[in-house]
Amino acid sequence: MQDLVKVAVDAMGGDNAPAEIVKGAVEALGVRDNVKVILVGQEEPIRAELKKYSYDEARVEVVNATEVIEMAEPPVNAIRQKKDSSIVVAMKMVRSGEADAFVGAGNTGAVLVGGTTIVGRVKGVERAPLAPLFPTAKGVSLLIDCGANVDARPAHLVKFARMGSIYMENVVGIKNPRVAIVNIGAEEEKGNALVKETFPLLRECKDINFIGSIEARDIPTGYADVIVCEAFVGNVILKLFEGVGNTMLSMVKEGLMSNTRSKIGALLVQPALKKSLKQFDTSEHGGAPLLGLKGLVVKTHGNAKAVHVRTSIIQCVTFTEQGMNEKIKAGIQAEQKVVSSNL
Amino acid sequence: MQDLVKVAVDAMGGDNAPAEIVKGAVEALGVRDNVKVILVGQEEPIRAELKKYSYDEARVEVVNATEVIEMAEPPVNAIRQKKDSSIVVAMKMVRSGEADAFVGAGNTGAVLVGGTTIVGRVKGVERAPLAPLFPTAKGVSLLIDCGANVDARPAHLVKFARMGSIYMENVVGIKNPRVAIVNIGAEEEKGNALVKETFPLLRECKDINFIGSIEARDIPTGYADVIVCEAFVGNVILKLFEGVGNTMLSMVKEGLMSNTRSKIGALLVQPALKKSLKQFDTSEHGGAPLLGLKGLVVKTHGNAKAVHVRTSIIQCVTFTEQGMNEKIKAGIQAEQKVVSSNL
Repeated sequence: MQDLVKVAVDAMGGDNAPAEIVKGAVEALGVRDNVKVILVGQEEPIRAELKKYSYDEARVEVVNATEVIEMAEPPVNAIRQKKDSSIVVAMKMVRSGEADAFVGAGNTGAVLVGGTTIVGRVKGVERAPLAPLFPTAKGVSLLIDCGANVDARPAHLVKFARMGSIYMENVVGIKNPRVAIVNIGAEEEKGNALVKETFPLLRECKDINFIGSIEARDIPTGYADVIVCEAFVGNVILKLFEGVGNTMLSMVKEGLMSNTRSKIGALLVQPALKKSLKQFDTSEHGGAPLLGLKGLVVKTHGNAKAVHVRTSIIQCVTFTEQGMNEKIKAGIQAEQKVVSSNL
Repeated sequence: MQDLVKVAVDAMGGDNAPAEIVKGAVEALGVRDNVKVILVGQEEPIRAELKKYSYDEARVEVVNATEVIEMAEPPVNAIRQKKDSSIVVAMKMVRSGEADAFVGAGNTGAVLVGGTTIVGRVKGVERAPLAPLFPTAKGVSLLIDCGANVDARPAHLVKFARMGSIYMENVVGIKNPRVAIVNIGAEEEKGNALVKETFPLLRECKDINFIGSIEARDIPTGYADVIVCEAFVGNVILKLFEGVGNTMLSMVKEGLMSNTRSKIGALLVQPALKKSLKQFDTSEHGGAPLLGLKGLVVKTHGNAKAVHVRTSIIQCVTFTEQGMNEKIKAGIQAEQKVVSSNL
């Protein structure tokens, strides 16, 4: 039993809790036999959901937590005051080593604050970025930071680039990943103050394969593997990606269903179209890890369904097996040694 | 002849100059009989292009300008040093009243700098935002600012909101347009420093129908008519919109062409699909005006084809007929009176 990866899941977080969360957790047990899920939250509703399924009971634990942090609650106060909330209790289990990872679909701010203050940051990391993979025409790219640290400084963005590179190389398996910074033009002199200051710093990093600026229109093409930006911009990118995709899909559907001729055609094109568009489905790529922490923290979508919860839990198993956090820690510390030996 | 709207067109600007620019200008003459185009740039190549068409010669003028501002040139220096460039010469015609409007597809920065320094801002406007219309599921929305003023301050964003409202009400004809600010969450306490400071200022404006924050995922749905943001964010939104749209369209096409069955289906769905997706075609909506200037300045896409040039020229006619600039000026000055009487 020593090899089980223990994932503490916030059973009360997100729009579909606890039903979809519990369902996803049970499904994860079927995917990997070295995962154990710890469902944290109000015991009664969790057990009621669990009763619907048959599963390996030895790999499920329920830990009671009486309070719930709501989606719109101001996060810093919520984490401070709701000591018996599912997020706080689950995060503490990661800190103490009772759990290897945290998965949550609830209040993003609270997950970020909890990750930073309860699980804690690796030495040398001042800000822990949220870094989701998203689909491109060529495969996947990593967007870092997409919502953890608004108004970040240039030195933070450089560390995001470093952590993102380590992630893409070790978890996704892309050798020497291409790193680009989101900008409003291709030339170095373009940009806002933050980008102009960060650009030369990135160019000087020997451990980062920095390829310069990326304009937003090139993001979906897969032009870069790691896309570095400040959190406000990253959040806009992530959500607009989703929004434009959804709106266009519904317009395609509407077009296909608009008359008899197109309805007949739709039957013929559907299988090929589905396959082609599946690449663009963000739900395939799990949740977003918060990088640079002492433990694993994965945030999944606020309206996560069982599939997202399951994928996020499995992601934690992969991260643990690949020693992702250790590699990020080693990368950050190696760079810090270089910096201090140069002083 | 007194009612002709005179549009000075930068014949040398953009990736397809002068051929597509001249073509678009000639096409515009056929759409409206009260427009005159002044093609500004190197006379010889312009006249060579003009020879390809037959058109009403009384409504075309060629003004020679020997220099060209290249796409990647640093804009401030370019405007200062290239006194005989097509952009500078054409902008000066707007300032002097020889032309009513400027249309250009070239170096965006140079158009912005030229608009601000040569054509000049309306009193009370510190920053002139670039404000394109873009397609949504419900029609069109205005994105303001999408590239003119990075690192803007809260007071600038409030004026962008005001100018955008006047534009949508008077040019697009939307009564009491809904104004939202781009944010990373729906709640007022969310956001970066700029948004947090701007939010309460917008709420207090009696002349603005402020509906609060808009998350990027809701932008394509048409949730707001005027979408206010800082230029870096606006530029990312505009370009990502285009990028995701293009990538998805090519994936749809790829899917449709992937096997015999889907190819047959494609023939059947094509007309309906085209109609449905045409709504999402940004080229239908012309160029982006630079608002708050003493004359009309419209920036069109760097790789503009004749259709974009034509649409942008026709836009200038509409703007002139509707007295857009006068209405913006009146709106800005009315608000300034309110502010000063409250002091």
